[in-house]
Amino acid sequence: MVVGLGPGDRSYSAPAAITAIETADVIVGYKTYLNLIEDLLVNKEVISSGMRKEIDRAKAAADLASEGKCVAVVSSGDPGVYGMAGIVLELVEEQYNDKNIEVEVIPGITAATAAAAALGAPLMHDFAVISLSDLLTPWTKIMTRIEAAGLGDFIVVLYNPKSHGRPNHINTAREIFLWHKDPMTPVGIVRNAKRGEEEVIITNLKEMLNHPIDMLTTVVIGNSQTKIINGKMVTPRGYQL
Amino acid sequence: MVVGLGPGDRSYSAPAAITAIETADVIVGYKTYLNLIEDLLVNKEVISSGMRKEIDRAKAAADLASEGKCVAVVSSGDPGVYGMAGIVLELVEEQYNDKNIEVEVIPGITAATAAAAALGAPLMHDFAVISLSDLLTPWTKIMTRIEAAGLGDFIVVLYNPKSHGRPNHINTAREIFLWHKDPMTPVGIVRNAKRGEEEVIITNLKEMLNHPIDMLTTVVIGNSQTKIINGKMVTPRGYQL
Ligand SMILES: C[S@@+](CC[C@H](N)C(=O)[O-])C[C@H]1O[C@@H](n2cnc3c(N)ncnc32)[C@H](O)[C@@H]1O
Ligand SMILES: C[S@@+](CC[C@H](N)C(=O)[O-])C[C@H]1O[C@@H](n2cnc3c(N)ncnc32)[C@H](O)[C@@H]1O
Repeated sequence: MVVGLGPGDRSYSAPAAITAIETADVIVGYKTYLNLIEDLLVNKEVISSGMRKEIDRAKAAADLASEGKCVAVVSSGDPGVYGMAGIVLELVEEQYNDKNIEVEVIPGITAATAAAAALGAPLMHDFAVISLSDLLTPWTKIMTRIEAAGLGDFIVVLYNPKSHGRPNHINTAREIFLWHKDPMTPVGIVRNAKRGEEEVIITNLKEMLNHPIDMLTTVVIGNSQTKIINGKMVTPRGYQL
Repeated sequence: MVVGLGPGDRSYSAPAAITAIETADVIVGYKTYLNLIEDLLVNKEVISSGMRKEIDRAKAAADLASEGKCVAVVSSGDPGVYGMAGIVLELVEEQYNDKNIEVEVIPGITAATAAAAALGAPLMHDFAVISLSDLLTPWTKIMTRIEAAGLGDFIVVLYNPKSHGRPNHINTAREIFLWHKDPMTPVGIVRNAKRGEEEVIITNLKEMLNHPIDMLTTVVIGNSQTKIINGKMVTPRGYQL
């Protein structure tokens, strides 16, 4: 089972995710995510590993499942959004397909909608979800997507907006958005959405770089209709009130 | 409180959503969604209404909240994705701003990731979420977005893919996707994801219209890298396995 824990607070984890973890013989995950569910790990075999060890984790899980164990691989948010679902499925279906392993993906609340809820209602129109991490996707391709999202007047949700290895991608992304979007376009920056100390900033494209952005942050950039109403970021759906 | 119930099955509703409903004095919602939580409505004031009565529901909720009642407006999935969050916030902040009403949005698992989980792991790269409903968005604007999503090689998730009033939008959308996407691009069609009788079809852009698509369906169209592996739809993230 590839299990989404949701944004972090237990009150946003689906009962199906908790049941999966309780049912499993072995829990596999990145350390930080395992900390979120420490209380559920008592008397469980636990395989924890550092960031960027996704392949090791997926292989460990597939090996254990081959031995007949029930394994839960945990991701934060939804495991199908820049999480572990893809690599586990690819590995199991391509390299362990003689082992009869069944994979179930258990969805969770993803950072895009957790952050949106903290901001108000920015995602009421069509939106694009883009990761600024170029570890696995060429940066030119990511830039093309940013431009396409600008052309289509999409609201845009940026995951992995900034890390030490690529501190300037967010600046470039902003430049490209400015080709199509007004500098006063509302921008929401949410750190630790629905996870302990939530931090919410509402700013605009012009000013956004004056605020802290890091790997624990999701950035939401409005479309041409997004407004700030009494400190909430809202993209009106278009009803005549 | 504007509350997301998740895709339908209770095991995918966040505890925070259930607590919100239990705490509220009044529950406001579209009939079909209220049916999902019938057991929680005992001894509650309930205001139920038909589809397309969003404004009436939002006004009823705001009026009750003005009287000091704690009101939960329920949406399926996430209330911030084509749900009730926007209209409630707009109304309360613009027309009831003298009433001191506090609005909290409680996120839920949205159809995009519920459907993705049923299909495998199609959303592992950047994706766009587009509604084909032109009740509140001009169809020309929706077509522009479909083209932009094609240009950007986004995976695309279509909400509201087909209704009696607009049976052909999905055909036009498919035509536009074919300008940029290969006819063999995998397409997933999920009806009632994580809600009772889930129906999952994996097909491709060429064949997709030979399968039933309706308002209870979410359609996921792959990008240039999406594959079908042993009956699962996967967009490989790009790890070297
Ligand atoms: C590798 S991705 C994992 C996404 C996760 N699978 C999901 O669906 O939310 C990590 C990125 O997700 C975003 N993120 C995850 N949880 C978050 C939270 N609670 N608050 C803000 N951003 C979050 C940040 O942009 C972070 O850099
Ligand atoms: C008005 S939108 C509401 C979306 C909802 N707020 C959400 O976040 O999932 C209705 C559309 O959502 C999609 N949808 C909602 N729940 C679904 C489910 N359980 N299975 C498949 N599609 C669903 C369908 O495309 C449907 O036409």
